[in-house]
Amino acid sequence: MRTLPRAIVVMGGAIALATGSVLSVSAQDDEAAIKYRQAVMSAVGGHMGGSVAIIKGAVPYKEDLVAHARGLNDMANVVSNAFKIETMGGDTRAKDEIWEDAADFNQKVEDFKKATAAFLAAAESGGPAAAAGKLDALGDTCKGCHKKFRAKKS
Amino acid sequence: MRTLPRAIVVMGGAIALATGSVLSVSAQDDEAAIKYRQAVMSAVGGHMGGSVAIIKGAVPYKEDLVAHARGLNDMANVVSNAFKIETMGGDTRAKDEIWEDAADFNQKVEDFKKATAAFLAAAESGGPAAAAGKLDALGDTCKGCHKKFRAKKS
Repeated sequence: MRTLPRAIVVMGGAIALATGSVLSVSAQDDEAAIKYRQAVMSAVGGHMGGSVAIIKGAVPYKEDLVAHARGLNDMANVVSNAFKIETMGGDTRAKDEIWEDAADFNQKVEDFKKATAAFLAAAESGGPAAAAGKLDALGDTCKGCHKKFRAKKS
Repeated sequence: MRTLPRAIVVMGGAIALATGSVLSVSAQDDEAAIKYRQAVMSAVGGHMGGSVAIIKGAVPYKEDLVAHARGLNDMANVVSNAFKIETMGGDTRAKDEIWEDAADFNQKVEDFKKATAAFLAAAESGGPAAAAGKLDALGDTCKGCHKKFRAKKS
């Protein structure tokens, strides 16, 4: 049921209220979808933190930048999948606007993908010095999306 | 100074006690090294959580498993770098035994590398069904290392 359009899921929920069985499965799916997205975002945050530390010279592991850049690019592609399941409400900072204004959200995910691709290409060809020039643009795509679509920490 | 052997760093610290300048730089380096390792481990945790969710069928994103498996394998290779800087003490769960029993730690990192390589190969060739058979062995390498070398949450 998870891959069905929301309208059908909601309909399923209504039926479940009557039967008392299906709704709990749907709630479990929502929880799993939320946990999965949070895992993806942990990976993004880890790779971003690692990239920034290397580029700023806080740690001397220049040769490891490409691994983080590849992780970011891979996760940018995963992100567009990870929000397919609507989970309005629940224990998540993902705002309902993600699905209410899907066109804008999807555009911001595309921006993130492009920025990570540019960051990876720079890291592969020119190392931290080259990737540094792509870091601000990448960070802006994070901030731009979080500002509109992620709730503040409660 | 960060890439120098510990003995020289310690010597530098002793000199710094006299001059009152270099030691603070070394402390900053330790803090940066700790933060970097924690970023790497966040990425590992995120990719592991994502992998488990896909393999268990909690989320329907089978096509994204390879990205997480590649992230795990990339980070396994990064891990062996990320612990080169000794940071005994400090705000970290990394235990002193990492550097006191380096041979065993390094062996456990090698086990982690091999397990992620096998997991990635299985994910690439046979998807979640094939990777499932490599998940327990991978998880064991995480647990085996954390049990000995990671302090409990305070």
